[in-house]
Amino acid sequence: MSLPAKVKLVEVGPRDGLQNESHPVSSADRIRLINDLGAAGLPVIEVGSFVSPKWVPQMAGSEQVFAGINRYAGSTYTALTPNMKGFEQALTAGAQEVAVFAAASEGFSQKNINCSISESLQRFEPVLAAAAQAGIRVRGYVSCVLGCPYDGDVPASQVAAVARELYAMGCYEISLGDTIGTGTPGATRQLIARVSDVVPHAALAGHFHDTYGQALANIYASLLEGVQVFDSSVAGLGGCPYAKGATGNVASEDVVYLLNGLGIDTGIDLGSLIEAGNRISETLERPNGSRVARAKNKQHA
Amino acid sequence: MSLPAKVKLVEVGPRDGLQNESHPVSSADRIRLINDLGAAGLPVIEVGSFVSPKWVPQMAGSEQVFAGINRYAGSTYTALTPNMKGFEQALTAGAQEVAVFAAASEGFSQKNINCSISESLQRFEPVLAAAAQAGIRVRGYVSCVLGCPYDGDVPASQVAAVARELYAMGCYEISLGDTIGTGTPGATRQLIARVSDVVPHAALAGHFHDTYGQALANIYASLLEGVQVFDSSVAGLGGCPYAKGATGNVASEDVVYLLNGLGIDTGIDLGSLIEAGNRISETLERPNGSRVARAKNKQHA
Repeated sequence: MSLPAKVKLVEVGPRDGLQNESHPVSSADRIRLINDLGAAGLPVIEVGSFVSPKWVPQMAGSEQVFAGINRYAGSTYTALTPNMKGFEQALTAGAQEVAVFAAASEGFSQKNINCSISESLQRFEPVLAAAAQAGIRVRGYVSCVLGCPYDGDVPASQVAAVARELYAMGCYEISLGDTIGTGTPGATRQLIARVSDVVPHAALAGHFHDTYGQALANIYASLLEGVQVFDSSVAGLGGCPYAKGATGNVASEDVVYLLNGLGIDTGIDLGSLIEAGNRISETLERPNGSRVARAKNKQHA
Repeated sequence: MSLPAKVKLVEVGPRDGLQNESHPVSSADRIRLINDLGAAGLPVIEVGSFVSPKWVPQMAGSEQVFAGINRYAGSTYTALTPNMKGFEQALTAGAQEVAVFAAASEGFSQKNINCSISESLQRFEPVLAAAAQAGIRVRGYVSCVLGCPYDGDVPASQVAAVARELYAMGCYEISLGDTIGTGTPGATRQLIARVSDVVPHAALAGHFHDTYGQALANIYASLLEGVQVFDSSVAGLGGCPYAKGATGNVASEDVVYLLNGLGIDTGIDLGSLIEAGNRISETLERPNGSRVARAKNKQHA
């Protein structure tokens, strides 16, 4: 058993998390959350997205959020940019890295972004070209890597094909998303093994949802397969178990606790991270979705 | 990676679970839960305990519960029996197997059962002798195997010493309990490796609490170390995250989902198990503590 000495966490709470919360969030609250996360030592923070507010009203005003945050030297501030318009807005706002979002299943691609997988990849081409010119790194998300709500099973070969394509187009990191959280460790290991045939291990990230409670087991399985980057969401933002349409992002606190226990360095201060999660949970008037936070809060109560 | 083809789940919800719930539970409700679990195919069900009702009022009337249940042919019905009086009551009630309860840390032993570890083992000797004569198998629990609320770290060598002693005294199975749920997969694997030097793998069980969300990762780690028996609690009984004093038993539904995903046979029907958990959660007027159950309930809502 050989585990990585260091792991990079990509904090998706302020974007993937908040956009799936029903409670409206002001720019001031988003800025405070991002500042709290920077102070806790999160190395990558997804600040927001530049998409039409018609589609994702929670992410309206991402340029104000970028303008308002304190930038910590150890943190990289990123944005989701589905198209050229969004990319240009992100660049103007000062995003240090951007991300594009594809699906591994045709059903999810059609329902989520209203086009086929190959059409979506074509749309990303000008973004990748412009980003290369601007010296901005691009991350590629692949959703539904361990199952699709519309198509059911998704073959690992299909995930590998989309991941390889995004990597070939210039994405420096490919985040493999178990969007519906149905994956288990054996399937996760087989997937990583298959995808790492076409994308180097160092360029892969695991993005697990805890909808069925499997996220940490899948992260441990991924570590055993050599994955060194994971996406997570402070307080489990976006995955409140009592909210409708919860997507179930794994809580950053629980991942950090796991990694600390394994002796893997993240550079993150767990206590400060828990405080960040407690603050945003209070703002959203919802229970903290991190089990580690709940256990620690109870100890201190 | 070689995983076992079959795993035995020991359902501890009706005993370990209910005795940690604040809501009072009638004998009728306990009987219905146990019948639901038998119908779902649980191979071992801990029905109750025979201890003084002064200490554990929730388990008063365990003899009535034993008398009232339907016994499914595929299920074994067990009881916790700390001393000879309890053992005789359990035998009269028709328990097919009994269990004794020791700690791996002196601090927990003193606080929980009011004697040293070695004194507790001495108390179990007549129980084991009487059980051998009656042809009843005895299970040995060891608590605090990955940390103690009073003593802090617990050396694996100390856990191994207690486990070896119980095994030598005649316990056929040793359940290693992460009572406070602080364990992570690396420590879990080291513990199993150490204990299996003195107790055969086939005689070990993993008993994980999900207080810090690590239980399924620890179960997966234990499977990789050759453990084939796990304790769990339907609906996460005993571990309601919103109750004070929650101990955090891992939910049986989440374990079965994990094992199903790994292609490991349990003989349990997940759908029926979820229904059993939903019914007892309604009775207790508390949210279902299983993520799998909550996800499936939402799908069908």
